[in-house]
Amino acid sequence: MPKLRVHNFSISLDGYGAGPGQDLENPIGRGGGVVHEWIFQTAYGRRMIGEPGGEEGVDNDFLLRGDEGIGATIMGRNMFGPIRGDWPDDDWKGWWGDIPPYHHPVFVLTHHPRESFSMEGGTTFNFVTGGIEEALDLARKAAGEKDIRLGGGASTVQQYMRAGLVDELHLAIVPVFLGSGERLFENLGGGPTGYECAELVASKSVVHARFVRK
Amino acid sequence: MPKLRVHNFSISLDGYGAGPGQDLENPIGRGGGVVHEWIFQTAYGRRMIGEPGGEEGVDNDFLLRGDEGIGATIMGRNMFGPIRGDWPDDDWKGWWGDIPPYHHPVFVLTHHPRESFSMEGGTTFNFVTGGIEEALDLARKAAGEKDIRLGGGASTVQQYMRAGLVDELHLAIVPVFLGSGERLFENLGGGPTGYECAELVASKSVVHARFVRK
Repeated sequence: MPKLRVHNFSISLDGYGAGPGQDLENPIGRGGGVVHEWIFQTAYGRRMIGEPGGEEGVDNDFLLRGDEGIGATIMGRNMFGPIRGDWPDDDWKGWWGDIPPYHHPVFVLTHHPRESFSMEGGTTFNFVTGGIEEALDLARKAAGEKDIRLGGGASTVQQYMRAGLVDELHLAIVPVFLGSGERLFENLGGGPTGYECAELVASKSVVHARFVRK
Repeated sequence: MPKLRVHNFSISLDGYGAGPGQDLENPIGRGGGVVHEWIFQTAYGRRMIGEPGGEEGVDNDFLLRGDEGIGATIMGRNMFGPIRGDWPDDDWKGWWGDIPPYHHPVFVLTHHPRESFSMEGGTTFNFVTGGIEEALDLARKAAGEKDIRLGGGASTVQQYMRAGLVDELHLAIVPVFLGSGERLFENLGGGPTGYECAELVASKSVVHARFVRK
């Protein structure tokens, strides 16, 4: 059966996936951008934002693997944008410009209905108000034989972890301290259980720890 | 000036240095022993408990470095033993048997006075009721030109971190989840600040991240 996979979920060494106070100027919260910097030092990460250069190697390989065999993505509303409450209009199309780097159907968890829309490059954004299992069902149908990527933020991953639905969890641990913000390993009712570490690798700037179900 | 150094402070990937409910049967709390297992797979770790064998390599090297150039150790009372409140008698001599692996003066932070005593192999245990700065002063005098090792538990390290007194922080991150217990990165009033990562290395079972003051 196709898997639900978390990849390249970046956290600080003290466990934060984002800083506090996410808004338009601070998509990863205040100070949180530092946990994503490694992405834009890789060749693949730079290509995603239309920039040349960048490094090959361990980090680049892990980044690439996060997109391999993926047919649909699920994300929380905060990963899609900074707007809270009702959608004031349809202007906000995500953080990623005209050609989002998904190229497949994306399912955004929200309490506020909105019409689906398509972007250049094959990405469609769909808004799911029925909760995490509905989103997963829709994503499975859209992905067919392929796996589903589970994006952030932390609370979205926590919801799927609590429900025991995450098959694979790859964390990118960055050796910095944020001190506050959103922790990934919180609200899990005793922590992730039933996983074993399948890979543990450090580049010069990131530790990659990949867990799979036992 | 001699430094105050934390070494081989082992935490789970979700940030816990110990499980909940420390007692005589569970010196690292329930389930917490798993974060220290790597130590007893190394040659140096096995030698500390009088066992033959064990592995050389990255983990062994980091373990060794934690004792190099150290002239005194500071630890919290919970690292010294499971007893809380007044000392009922002088029977408890620490977790480490007749020859503790320190071989130098150890200063135990406690609110309850107790006479110092000496153990075979050169370890003395001294009980400090005047707080962390008094303990550091005493340890500095005892260590002379050498550095001071800061042991655990988490709350002891937090106290010294909050006071800005820790010069070097080496964490051993074990890819397991504890889910509850004592977190190292808590109660720090915004997290450790002023550190940079000097080393980031993964063995097959442990990530070593060493931070030094900028």
